[in-house]
Amino acid sequence: MKRITFLLAAVLAVAAVFAFRAPSSGRADQASAPAFVTKIPAGYRNWKFISVAHEEGNLHSFAAVLGNDVAIKAYREGTLPFPDGTIVAALHYQHVPSEENNKVFGQAQSFVPGAPTNIQFMVKDSTKYAATGGWGFGFFINGKPVEASKMGSCYPCHAQEKSRDLVFTRYAP
Amino acid sequence: MKRITFLLAAVLAVAAVFAFRAPSSGRADQASAPAFVTKIPAGYRNWKFISVAHEEGNLHSFAAVLGNDVAIKAYREGTLPFPDGTIVAALHYQHVPSEENNKVFGQAQSFVPGAPTNIQFMVKDSTKYAATGGWGFGFFINGKPVEASKMGSCYPCHAQEKSRDLVFTRYAP
Repeated sequence: MKRITFLLAAVLAVAAVFAFRAPSSGRADQASAPAFVTKIPAGYRNWKFISVAHEEGNLHSFAAVLGNDVAIKAYREGTLPFPDGTIVAALHYQHVPSEENNKVFGQAQSFVPGAPTNIQFMVKDSTKYAATGGWGFGFFINGKPVEASKMGSCYPCHAQEKSRDLVFTRYAP
Repeated sequence: MKRITFLLAAVLAVAAVFAFRAPSSGRADQASAPAFVTKIPAGYRNWKFISVAHEEGNLHSFAAVLGNDVAIKAYREGTLPFPDGTIVAALHYQHVPSEENNKVFGQAQSFVPGAPTNIQFMVKDSTKYAATGGWGFGFFINGKPVEASKMGSCYPCHAQEKSRDLVFTRYAP
């Protein structure tokens, strides 16, 4: 939970620097409020591998980034912007030392995924998510979406990556 | 190349502690020499995600561990020993800082895969690889297998993981 708080704090710190173009989800005007991904896309754990990631600072997180078939095809063919139907999943875990591996190596050098911390999704639907660059963002802890107000920081951070259609992760060969 | 040398050195250091039960591949007796995996299994880049790994020490490596359908089924069902037909792939990259991500976060905290360094495979065939615990080991750099004498260190290191059929990597949920 501490980790999540730090993650949100880090993302919010970045968000604070940039104007958030979509209206706040706290507004009564439902029609123009940004839409978020509040249901976990089916079958994501069977998707193909895009890349891995490791965040230090206050996060100490390990991630696997997976993509559905539309995402993988777009990555491999270099298609930008990503087509509607693309979904990218980031599975986050604690980044922890592996005592059993270190014993084999005879020194402290191995890190493995610890407990899962959260799963994040980016779903491309240029109509539904027009207010946030065509991407719907989702952030799940223990299978449940975090409250919408906390997901408002996803877009302004990702909006900085204009050259790759708001997607930070590059494809690992 | 330096990284590979370190990796091999680390593995050999472990290997030196344990007796290698299979005959050396340098022997003229071909029939009893251990067999290695010298051809990259087709389609491995489309396999499902098992876990991620990060080695420091002298390696500075980032890995994605993927499995074919037989491997994934066995992992998910907790089947041990792994059945014949199981293949586990470890895709290794340099573990490098991401300047572009650090700029967004406003501090040095992000690490991503750099250049690919090697790919390693474990192929289960209890007949063909009987001399090495039922597993064939493969180690590829730039798509080419390293020389057999260098693959001789894989088995004695993995042989230490008796409780999980010689496989170090655990399944990430």
